[in-house]
Amino acid sequence: MTVTESRAPQGPVPEGAARPPVAVVIGTGLIGASIGCALTAAGFQVHLRDHKISHARVAASLGAGVIEAPRTADVGLVVVAVPPAAIPDLVGHALGSYPMATVTDVGSVKAGVLHALWQRDIPLERYVGSHPMAGSHQSGPMTARRDLFQDRTWVITPHRRSLPAAVQRVSRLVSACGARELVMDVDDHDAAVARVSHLPHLLSVLMAGHLNAVPAENLVLAGQGLRDVTRVASSDPVLWEQILASNAQAVLSELRRVRDDFSALIDAIEVAPASEALLQRLERGVAGTQKIPGKHGAPPVHYRQVVVEIPDEPGALGRLFADVGAAGVNVEDISIEHDQVRQVGYLALSVTPDRAEELAVLMVRSGWNVG
Amino acid sequence: MTVTESRAPQGPVPEGAARPPVAVVIGTGLIGASIGCALTAAGFQVHLRDHKISHARVAASLGAGVIEAPRTADVGLVVVAVPPAAIPDLVGHALGSYPMATVTDVGSVKAGVLHALWQRDIPLERYVGSHPMAGSHQSGPMTARRDLFQDRTWVITPHRRSLPAAVQRVSRLVSACGARELVMDVDDHDAAVARVSHLPHLLSVLMAGHLNAVPAENLVLAGQGLRDVTRVASSDPVLWEQILASNAQAVLSELRRVRDDFSALIDAIEVAPASEALLQRLERGVAGTQKIPGKHGAPPVHYRQVVVEIPDEPGALGRLFADVGAAGVNVEDISIEHDQVRQVGYLALSVTPDRAEELAVLMVRSGWNVG
Repeated sequence: MTVTESRAPQGPVPEGAARPPVAVVIGTGLIGASIGCALTAAGFQVHLRDHKISHARVAASLGAGVIEAPRTADVGLVVVAVPPAAIPDLVGHALGSYPMATVTDVGSVKAGVLHALWQRDIPLERYVGSHPMAGSHQSGPMTARRDLFQDRTWVITPHRRSLPAAVQRVSRLVSACGARELVMDVDDHDAAVARVSHLPHLLSVLMAGHLNAVPAENLVLAGQGLRDVTRVASSDPVLWEQILASNAQAVLSELRRVRDDFSALIDAIEVAPASEALLQRLERGVAGTQKIPGKHGAPPVHYRQVVVEIPDEPGALGRLFADVGAAGVNVEDISIEHDQVRQVGYLALSVTPDRAEELAVLMVRSGWNVG
Repeated sequence: MTVTESRAPQGPVPEGAARPPVAVVIGTGLIGASIGCALTAAGFQVHLRDHKISHARVAASLGAGVIEAPRTADVGLVVVAVPPAAIPDLVGHALGSYPMATVTDVGSVKAGVLHALWQRDIPLERYVGSHPMAGSHQSGPMTARRDLFQDRTWVITPHRRSLPAAVQRVSRLVSACGARELVMDVDDHDAAVARVSHLPHLLSVLMAGHLNAVPAENLVLAGQGLRDVTRVASSDPVLWEQILASNAQAVLSELRRVRDDFSALIDAIEVAPASEALLQRLERGVAGTQKIPGKHGAPPVHYRQVVVEIPDEPGALGRLFADVGAAGVNVEDISIEHDQVRQVGYLALSVTPDRAEELAVLMVRSGWNVG
């Protein structure tokens, strides 16, 4: 495309009419198509590009944008949403093709892309990497939806040459998608995803791979635990080979540490199957699961418990549950506490701190012993 | 309880009236209480026992049975649903206390219990171990439900002295709970659960345990993969220490094999990050996930694909989706196939084999090119 073409006006714009911002999304898989849908909903004029024209067409039919090419000079934002190995080429190309645009990619590893771009000796002021923490085992535009990123974390990884205005445009992309922005250093980001994404992926793959050696009649006994642990191993191996390869050093460092833990676990069971050492490892696992923030990155909510004595009368529990329901306070969790000495039980009702007092008062009024 | 007491008649039974079968459930956690609910719904008279009387009371309030003691001679079935370490004692005790009863336990490891019982030199003809493949991260009776075992596999592990009549009673328990019975040798069962349950549990624990060393700001990036892989690690560590310890040899044998795979994976990435070797391991993982039978043990369904060309016309896809909907055939999956040479796409609609022909005919009639 020539400079003349890219600067040609596209019909008269009515005076005073604000032109919508123009974005190009390159790659219309699940992520790209969902970004297209979110940007379109936010008022952007979105142009879709995919070397598989049928994918772009499906994405367009789902409201992700149009498949016609934009005037290059109008484009203010380019989102490169393609498999990792293709990112540097397409980012480099987009920086050349769209002279006014900020270019971002949404790849899940950032340092390799930046390194590859530096080596090409092209000006990178308008490039700012990013990584939305959303996705699915599904791929392709068919399951695209504009709220895919709603309330999810979206990491922005500016480099030392990134223009503040370019960072700001990526920031607008993130908020247009309803995501929560988190600015990180490129290397910190890559170390983090090695720990929270690439390592669990490989453990899942190890477990799933082992199933090939398990007799089919054993697999009839598979429960939810096995399904949960192996689910992510069903993801696209070609995509994951690229992701893992592009973050190999960080991934290896995590793998080596977990292998040491693994060996120590085997040693502990060999020494004494029923042992404090095994119990401590299991407890450490429970503690680890509690460190994961609430879904969608929300901070874990701390509830307060209202503890009600369970009376020893027929039908009492039915009445108790009815009174809890009538109190109109949202109970997040219920558990049974037991007093081994007095041989009585208590229902512990977990509620948000602001409603605990109210529920306690209402239960006392209804005649319950609240501890 | 004395023999006299246990044989005392409990009021007159109207002539011709069939007495309901009487069962005792010992331990009213999630599993015991759910069994109580299922047996009660199936017409059993269920008596609940728990050393935490409040748990038995909650289970009773949920319809799992009554907390009053039965006449011991009436009891035809005892289900011991307690943590692994307590099973041998309570099975032995139940065989003595309920002289007419078949006694089963629902522990997740079988050889250790049997071994412990043999050593006590008590007659074991009326004991038949079993293991329902159901549960949840939750524990306690609060979340009990009578359909917990619906369509789940329930393994029965008779030993060489088990009476056929006793096996039959456990079989009736399984069908009363709506589960699918699977008879297995005790050692085969234990090897199977080491592979499909205990091994994935420990891998989940390793991953979750590692999170204790991960900075909190990294965990904000946690996605669904990490949550899936670590979910089962949040289970009760005291219960799992007992389970794993009682199946230590089988578990160790699986752990050692996976550790070898783990080391080979590290070696492969060290040699060459982007490599055929890594890709093959990822593909082996995908293949492993496909070996797990459908949820609830249903065999994986094989679908047939009806492939429709995606036309290059505005609005065509909307019409295509509308026609697919109007055909009234349940589409299980949709994917996009792409012809790189002709640059055209196809929608592949997956349907059950018996409806494929019909859908293809309807789509052709509506004017689509079906390949």
